[in-house]
Amino acid sequence: MKTYIGIDLGGTNIKGAVVNEQGEIIRQSAWPTHAEQGVETVTATIADMIRDLAKGEDIAGVGLGCPGTVDDKCGTVVYACNLGWINYDVRSALKKLTGFSVRLVNDANAAALAEVVAGAAKGAESAVVVPLGTGVGGGVVIGGKLLTGYTGAASELGHMVIVADGVPCACGRKGCFEAYASATALIRMTDEAMSAHPESAMHQIAAELGGVDGRTAFAAQQAGDPVGDAVVRQYIRYLSIGIANIVNIFFPEVVALSGGVANQGENLLAPLRREVSQQEYGAAYTAKHPRIACCTLGNTAGMIGAAMFAKG
Amino acid sequence: MKTYIGIDLGGTNIKGAVVNEQGEIIRQSAWPTHAEQGVETVTATIADMIRDLAKGEDIAGVGLGCPGTVDDKCGTVVYACNLGWINYDVRSALKKLTGFSVRLVNDANAAALAEVVAGAAKGAESAVVVPLGTGVGGGVVIGGKLLTGYTGAASELGHMVIVADGVPCACGRKGCFEAYASATALIRMTDEAMSAHPESAMHQIAAELGGVDGRTAFAAQQAGDPVGDAVVRQYIRYLSIGIANIVNIFFPEVVALSGGVANQGENLLAPLRREVSQQEYGAAYTAKHPRIACCTLGNTAGMIGAAMFAKG
Repeated sequence: MKTYIGIDLGGTNIKGAVVNEQGEIIRQSAWPTHAEQGVETVTATIADMIRDLAKGEDIAGVGLGCPGTVDDKCGTVVYACNLGWINYDVRSALKKLTGFSVRLVNDANAAALAEVVAGAAKGAESAVVVPLGTGVGGGVVIGGKLLTGYTGAASELGHMVIVADGVPCACGRKGCFEAYASATALIRMTDEAMSAHPESAMHQIAAELGGVDGRTAFAAQQAGDPVGDAVVRQYIRYLSIGIANIVNIFFPEVVALSGGVANQGENLLAPLRREVSQQEYGAAYTAKHPRIACCTLGNTAGMIGAAMFAKG
Repeated sequence: MKTYIGIDLGGTNIKGAVVNEQGEIIRQSAWPTHAEQGVETVTATIADMIRDLAKGEDIAGVGLGCPGTVDDKCGTVVYACNLGWINYDVRSALKKLTGFSVRLVNDANAAALAEVVAGAAKGAESAVVVPLGTGVGGGVVIGGKLLTGYTGAASELGHMVIVADGVPCACGRKGCFEAYASATALIRMTDEAMSAHPESAMHQIAAELGGVDGRTAFAAQQAGDPVGDAVVRQYIRYLSIGIANIVNIFFPEVVALSGGVANQGENLLAPLRREVSQQEYGAAYTAKHPRIACCTLGNTAGMIGAAMFAKG
């Protein structure tokens, strides 16, 4: 059976795996990135990992998942701010070192492809994966193919304005989905509510959990705190606006959430589904509705997706 | 050379054409729809037109462009409010009457496909067409294929919220792109500004043009009226938010505008391009940017696109 190597290049670790055609991991490894040692050292580490994983395998292709913007047509990382890489021809460098002509894919896009091959959206004809982490990313798979766009930078779903003139976003726009639906946004809403409500149970919960994070408001809601409940409702309302936009634009078979906030599971999904269904265009006239779920592959998704992107 | 029949089913007229593989119209006709005579009569008219157009031609396929939601997999018009059609199996009906197994496509999607085959986005690897009319529609073509989604109802770009809690939209949501960027929205903004500014030149211009419409504010701006100028700027700002969202989601090679407002040409496009470029994610790191243009096929786009959809 043919196998593929998928590399997930992160700011902290480089993870790699040998993956079969079904998206199953056969073996894997993880080494520190040491981005501070510069682009040539990081590239040499990736090459060493590829050679190491390839030993004794019949490798039909290698995929590299990178943060930021990649151009698979040209073989370059256009811009990856975590790594400090700008217009770097990583394909040529890795070709010299390993002999493989590596396919390039954005890491969030790779994760989305993995969920369609082997995870929450397995077998779906179309799926949109929305990571709710420090920021809000996105990956769109249609008919088994990733939406990468003319520039290779498509599906920046977090940088869709949902509140004109709203909260400033790191990208320079105001009111982006990311500024209302990321874990960072949830923490901001939690902080604001805690400042306004010294009586809220969130103060004690935050102290017990070692500080305010994306879990604080959900934990308070579960404990019956009305302020925590209001924060969660506010957050889910904004999340539903962005997800409903995505539904009305793509009408995918599956919308799958990942990232820290998605760990809330049904506490997040059940109210989210209710809110989205009310905003779905033409919902009354069709029995088919997107299924909203959580991703299932966790931090293996990047490796599996990079390998499956190389499979093509 | 193979030819295709494309039918554009509208509330007022049924337009049909024989179209060659390059998307060129060989001959065409237009008959009244008479939707009020019911679904069987309208279907019989479509069948007559198909038979009439097919005479003496080697027809390789027939496409039917319909308003509303269509399900090409099932062969049904799911919901077309202008026609009063709900879950109507038009493919079976037309198969019996004509012998052709007709492909079904949403009319705005058909128009988008036509612009990629033979119009403003000819040869583009991806394009998004945005009609700015009574409402705001959408059609997305990626790698020569239409984005239709799991339900057949994808690319409802007008029903993407850009102003949470904003102006109510006909769809039931608040703050949709359509509620800020349609010709209807421009007329609302014009009316509001005229009420607030009795001194504006827009009053005289509207009187001369036979009433307020989508041209009033643009004409006033050209005549040096500061109130008209402010309305146009406000409209283009909201339009740019939605178009920039579309760019950040799809990063298409071309974004093409159609509908009455697009007749303003460069008076609309030049400021729009400036505003969108400032909101494009990662614009500083790539030399590739979507080209923003006006559609060129006018009201033949629906027929051409339906024929090209049948070509597949």
